[in-house]
Amino acid sequence: MSEGNENVKKDNKKLSKEERIAARQNQSKQAESTEDDFAKDFYGLMPLIQSKEKVDRTLLKVADLTSDLVDTKVWVRGRLFVSRKTTNKQCFFTIRQQFHTVQAIVSVSETVSKAMVKFVSDITRESIIDVEGFLRKSPTKIESCTQSDVELHATQVFVVSQSEPRLPLLIEDAMRPEIEGEDLSVAKQDTKLDNRIIDLRTLTNQAIYRVEAGVCRLFRETLDSQGFVEIHTPKIINAASEGGANVFKVSYFKTSAYLAQSPQLYKQMAIAADFERVYTIGSVFRAEDSNTHRHLTEFIGLDVEIAIKYHYHEVLDIIGNLFTSIFKGLEKQYAKEIETVRKQYPSEPFQFLEPA
Amino acid sequence: MSEGNENVKKDNKKLSKEERIAARQNQSKQAESTEDDFAKDFYGLMPLIQSKEKVDRTLLKVADLTSDLVDTKVWVRGRLFVSRKTTNKQCFFTIRQQFHTVQAIVSVSETVSKAMVKFVSDITRESIIDVEGFLRKSPTKIESCTQSDVELHATQVFVVSQSEPRLPLLIEDAMRPEIEGEDLSVAKQDTKLDNRIIDLRTLTNQAIYRVEAGVCRLFRETLDSQGFVEIHTPKIINAASEGGANVFKVSYFKTSAYLAQSPQLYKQMAIAADFERVYTIGSVFRAEDSNTHRHLTEFIGLDVEIAIKYHYHEVLDIIGNLFTSIFKGLEKQYAKEIETVRKQYPSEPFQFLEPA
Repeated sequence: MSEGNENVKKDNKKLSKEERIAARQNQSKQAESTEDDFAKDFYGLMPLIQSKEKVDRTLLKVADLTSDLVDTKVWVRGRLFVSRKTTNKQCFFTIRQQFHTVQAIVSVSETVSKAMVKFVSDITRESIIDVEGFLRKSPTKIESCTQSDVELHATQVFVVSQSEPRLPLLIEDAMRPEIEGEDLSVAKQDTKLDNRIIDLRTLTNQAIYRVEAGVCRLFRETLDSQGFVEIHTPKIINAASEGGANVFKVSYFKTSAYLAQSPQLYKQMAIAADFERVYTIGSVFRAEDSNTHRHLTEFIGLDVEIAIKYHYHEVLDIIGNLFTSIFKGLEKQYAKEIETVRKQYPSEPFQFLEPA
Repeated sequence: MSEGNENVKKDNKKLSKEERIAARQNQSKQAESTEDDFAKDFYGLMPLIQSKEKVDRTLLKVADLTSDLVDTKVWVRGRLFVSRKTTNKQCFFTIRQQFHTVQAIVSVSETVSKAMVKFVSDITRESIIDVEGFLRKSPTKIESCTQSDVELHATQVFVVSQSEPRLPLLIEDAMRPEIEGEDLSVAKQDTKLDNRIIDLRTLTNQAIYRVEAGVCRLFRETLDSQGFVEIHTPKIINAASEGGANVFKVSYFKTSAYLAQSPQLYKQMAIAADFERVYTIGSVFRAEDSNTHRHLTEFIGLDVEIAIKYHYHEVLDIIGNLFTSIFKGLEKQYAKEIETVRKQYPSEPFQFLEPA
């Protein structure tokens, strides 16, 4: 597990094609040798899905695999996160789906052959797999998985989409907290950004994006319940919206235009046009040539505007209530996501006062 | 009511300053002459609101003035839509708020003086007013108002923000349906667009913007309930997103960039990054130099992307369900808004089949 450096990426590019071919041939050979395998119909590589048939099968979510379902037979689709062959007869593997993981086991039995165990243990990490199995109560709490009370005893395992044998970075390395003195490898920021699609698969990033969506949802729900109207404002405008510095110029047919630095003017016009209370969520553009963590040339703005009736404290009340209702909503509805983020980035619970 | 042409606008610009001063002087004179008016504390021009004091007053919404509240005393803030002085002792006026209107009456009584009736009848259209009064059951159905069962018997009337005596267009003219052979004036499209902030105040436009917000809300609610994650995608990108034609070029510091013609790539990358089901609502830019009703250089796109499990019909099911749930939601939750739009733009109820 010493991935996460520049060379790995280069090696990967050089080798991946040959490796991929080798892996495929290996799998094919295996498939051939399964002719006299009693379990041969219960595992293998699925052909490319081309909408040829509708499969009457309910794929359960990993998040839903809880002790309520113990001893039922389920189908799950997920990524093969990690696998470990303990003997020739048994292989443990983890199925990952978004920010949930469950442990699965395939062991030789009346219906599972040695070849099937080998096939499963050879599946490359990050491959997408369909697994059928009985959900069993786990003898001990599985600390490494989010579904820690159960494990899946696989009866069928199919590879839906096979991953390259060597990846530019491992999900595990990209989501490991940086702890001083610890020896385990952590993926570098550059490697992560160069392979953002893989990096986004970490449990942490899956959770972060859901919290982000949650902030927008709670923002809108709170304001909708208070008579706000959502509006959308123009982004290509004919004059700079705030001052004039830091504005991006756009070629607009035979003339030029600017990218809006703020929805401010349009919100105010909406108020003058009797909307009374409006909000907008949208892109904001700032041509600030500063390479700091606090300058972005483009971001998503959450903007509110109201007509004041008698006193500006009315705005403060709305803002105060808005923030606490977002914070409370996140705590309550996104507890699992926040807990997931904290595993990589430890932090104290967020403290806030509710308006009296 | 023969507004709505180019000359009016010019005249208005020329005259408005003097007229405004005259109107103010007139109002001031009136204010002076009220010294021995027993009703003098119950009407007048409010000073500019500067957050000097918090008023302990609940302003009801015009939409909430229904027969349930008959014989209660209420405060309302709205625009003076139209007024009609029937005698020296009585004036009818309509208060408009967004897409709701209510009829109000001020008539001479023990607490209402002749001067007060005159003051109310002189208030310029589109002024914002605070009105206190008793809500009474209306003797006949008031067809011209949305709150047709009640009328407000005013006991106090204050002008919060005085409007110019002459406006570039009248709200009534901007929301009148175009009926062939009818003689009433209809504001021209150019006049409306040149004075968009006034035009947006029409009941029709207020309703249209609410329906638009409703479409987005129903889109998100339907998808949220099906495990979708909202994402936001970059708008400034380093290569054209679809083909390369019709793309806007942006000066990006020492180099150049492009405006995204679609969130397509980012949605697909989100799927490759295990999000499984995503949607995004945001600006889309197309450099199409075509002056038709069907070409826009900028619009708000509602975009969905899913990972297909076995068959592309899964997408069709999601889209089918999405549309019907938006249509049903609009019918149910935005019935008043749709009814309001139909008054200006008559149309048949929208028919659709629900997926079996």
